[in-house]
Amino acid sequence: MSPAFEKFKAYLDKLNHYSRVINLLSWDMYTTTPKLGFDGMAATDTYFSTEYFALYTSDEFYELVKTLNEPEEYEQLTPGYQFTVRKYKKNLEKDRKIPKDFYERFTAARNESQRAWTEAKNAADFSIFAPHLEKMIEYTKQQLAYTDPGKDVYDTLLGLYEEGMDSTTIDKVFEELKEGLLPLTRKILSAPQPDSSIFKGYYDPDAQKKVEKLLLSYMGFSFDAGVTAESEHPFTDGFSRYDVRVTNHFYEDNPFSSMFSAIHEGGHAIFEQNVDPALTGTAADDCCYMGVHESQSRFYENILGRNRNFWIPIYNKVQELLPELKRFSLDEFIRECNHIQASFIRTEADEVTYCMHILIRYEIEQAIFRDHVPASELPALWNQKYQEYLGITPANDAEGILQDMHWSDGSFGYFPTYLLGSIYDGMFLEALEKDLGSVDDILAAGEIRKITRWLNENIHWYGSLRLPKEVIEKVCQKELSAKPLLNYFEDKYSKIYQL
Amino acid sequence: MSPAFEKFKAYLDKLNHYSRVINLLSWDMYTTTPKLGFDGMAATDTYFSTEYFALYTSDEFYELVKTLNEPEEYEQLTPGYQFTVRKYKKNLEKDRKIPKDFYERFTAARNESQRAWTEAKNAADFSIFAPHLEKMIEYTKQQLAYTDPGKDVYDTLLGLYEEGMDSTTIDKVFEELKEGLLPLTRKILSAPQPDSSIFKGYYDPDAQKKVEKLLLSYMGFSFDAGVTAESEHPFTDGFSRYDVRVTNHFYEDNPFSSMFSAIHEGGHAIFEQNVDPALTGTAADDCCYMGVHESQSRFYENILGRNRNFWIPIYNKVQELLPELKRFSLDEFIRECNHIQASFIRTEADEVTYCMHILIRYEIEQAIFRDHVPASELPALWNQKYQEYLGITPANDAEGILQDMHWSDGSFGYFPTYLLGSIYDGMFLEALEKDLGSVDDILAAGEIRKITRWLNENIHWYGSLRLPKEVIEKVCQKELSAKPLLNYFEDKYSKIYQL
Repeated sequence: MSPAFEKFKAYLDKLNHYSRVINLLSWDMYTTTPKLGFDGMAATDTYFSTEYFALYTSDEFYELVKTLNEPEEYEQLTPGYQFTVRKYKKNLEKDRKIPKDFYERFTAARNESQRAWTEAKNAADFSIFAPHLEKMIEYTKQQLAYTDPGKDVYDTLLGLYEEGMDSTTIDKVFEELKEGLLPLTRKILSAPQPDSSIFKGYYDPDAQKKVEKLLLSYMGFSFDAGVTAESEHPFTDGFSRYDVRVTNHFYEDNPFSSMFSAIHEGGHAIFEQNVDPALTGTAADDCCYMGVHESQSRFYENILGRNRNFWIPIYNKVQELLPELKRFSLDEFIRECNHIQASFIRTEADEVTYCMHILIRYEIEQAIFRDHVPASELPALWNQKYQEYLGITPANDAEGILQDMHWSDGSFGYFPTYLLGSIYDGMFLEALEKDLGSVDDILAAGEIRKITRWLNENIHWYGSLRLPKEVIEKVCQKELSAKPLLNYFEDKYSKIYQL
Repeated sequence: MSPAFEKFKAYLDKLNHYSRVINLLSWDMYTTTPKLGFDGMAATDTYFSTEYFALYTSDEFYELVKTLNEPEEYEQLTPGYQFTVRKYKKNLEKDRKIPKDFYERFTAARNESQRAWTEAKNAADFSIFAPHLEKMIEYTKQQLAYTDPGKDVYDTLLGLYEEGMDSTTIDKVFEELKEGLLPLTRKILSAPQPDSSIFKGYYDPDAQKKVEKLLLSYMGFSFDAGVTAESEHPFTDGFSRYDVRVTNHFYEDNPFSSMFSAIHEGGHAIFEQNVDPALTGTAADDCCYMGVHESQSRFYENILGRNRNFWIPIYNKVQELLPELKRFSLDEFIRECNHIQASFIRTEADEVTYCMHILIRYEIEQAIFRDHVPASELPALWNQKYQEYLGITPANDAEGILQDMHWSDGSFGYFPTYLLGSIYDGMFLEALEKDLGSVDDILAAGEIRKITRWLNENIHWYGSLRLPKEVIEKVCQKELSAKPLLNYFEDKYSKIYQL
């Protein structure tokens, strides 16, 4: 250990302690904190977040990071620390260009904007949120003018969430997908549909919790290195590969929601639990590319979880734990899991129409940053696109443009990563079947852990070390393409809907 | 706000942020952290605990505290801040006398001792723990030689947990109790006993959780300012009056344990939820006297919870939530709640023999610090006293001297506060009935909230502002005495056991 690395390591450990408690405070606020305790937790969160930012952007740390990027130091580092000092240097060069007072104003405006969004959504009234959205757009542009002057704003935003994926690349695959998917979706939507109403009934939330645990264990989630909890919206929160937490929400009248959320979040969690332990404590110890991360949750949720064979070995056990399901045959159950419907809410959409929800958002984000469409005109644009792609128009803004919180805190450019994840999945499925043979057969034999192991070894192990394009290249030995996903949809739904 | 107070307040807020995250880390480790995540959480806990101690004992803070103790500053402070600066001055004067290297050695030895205790308990082999216990005794004496030179060690220890209660006072009331209670206990134990075996069966843990929530609400626990969780041993953890958390443990074969733990911890929690809001953020905002705190948990658990009338308004609801109880009449149920038995494990003892468990520990602590009995001789002393007071001898050290963890981390002098709590309860019961009339009638009428309100107004509201002796004086207008508790036991159990 060189003296410079020793100093850097001590500083990094300290930063890691700070981010751990910031993470823990947020975990607690989402899962546990009672109503009246929220202000106290939030004040402590603000305190440590501010301290963290000061430590992270300090001259002292920046100097250490620069020193470790010098060749004679850099070459001695392990890949995890090389990644860390490279990433921090790049980020700090940018972040240190943001004036402190601007940062504070942006933070304050973001908090106000989130509050206004909540109010607007509850009132189903976009006009409450519009001025804040306008501000978020302006502040975002301003921030990028500091950090990435002269670069295309929307491309830079996309790179924040999925490094190396610019709009040229994304346009190409999204167009490819849209061309094939629009006609397929229209065919599906006009075909005869199953009767969802047979699933009306009461599904004991305590029993659903037991099913969640069964599903997670079955997939390969480690309860030695993870826990489950409840929250308003399901999410995954990792402290390290040794402590990865998933949450869920249990609806009394819906047995599917918590099952597919469990499988989805389980996919995120299995990723984080299986990163190379040598990366622990470095910036590469989880996956910072949202598309790649999402590809894993969606692979489990859709490619595996919505496959009839996934359920063959466990459907009896699920029925034992949740006896209300005994009324339904496996065929009825799985038919409902693959029920394709035009609907308004992205997070509740099936795997096919989900793509449309993202395409719409991607096009609107481009309208914002490329065509400078003002906030006030966005609801009309939103509704027009829903009519065009899904043939439906939201009754109000709450089930329209106000449904997602992403834009309220300035997370522009995030949405496309969801669809990128699905597009990667099509390619991963091809690669996996080339290596292991038919997924149908593996699942039917109850050998899902074989698939998990393949994902562990080919994707999870590397944490953030490989950029998204490198992941695709290494795993699939192919250029990124939406074709495999399209083929998967066409094969699957032609059979199901007898097209 | 004087400039000195302003500085002090900013420093105190910072300390409060630190203690909040230390508390949260510990809460998470007890309730949530998965097995493999424990080391990560513990490392962060150590980091912030060390930082906290450095901030708390810094010259800067000590100077601020001293300044605010000057009359011209002190008189301007609210009672909560007066208490805070007084307490901190006293504690800092002592704590700053502890050499840093001694403190570190003690901390390391304490960790080793706790580990050795766990190992010894699992192996039921006291010899593994004996050298560590010897060390804990030595370090404790050494620490008090720094902080309280020339004072009686055991009296000083007692004062750490129940300020103002020295062994002269405690000896007097414990003797008073023992004299009456020993013959009563012997009479009870030789009377005919109910048949506990009828309660054998399976009691759904999920249903028990629902009963817990019912009991807590019924007593007056606020779920807006509190939550429930699970842990190996039940405990209460308060972040402020706005966020007080209780845990429980649910045994499939025992419906009583979780119910009485819920009522017990609920008593602690209702205390903390009802401290004067003006004290929030000061050192007086919870109760730092363990005996007074325990008096409230034990008042709910024993005086109220083991009273037949407590259950009259809710037994039907409890049976609805936990249908396995429908087999038992209220009389059978309550009879088992008041089943007095000689048993080995303190935490599972009934309210009468519980007192004996504490008397034994109190006498052994005196043997350690006054008669200098070496650790190696303590198991024999322990077993001899169990034979003398309860007529039973533990089969091994795990159900004997190794059962409690208190001595493993040097918490000598803590045990007596449990019994002080019960003795206070006898007196509080008298005072409460003088004010409100018969507790039986209030409970039978389903008006337990009246009792809660009386406790809120007379005890909880003051947090730590009143010393234990002042609490007794203000609430009971009497000297401390064990007579009321004895009277309560005699009345109640003469009827139940038809003595």
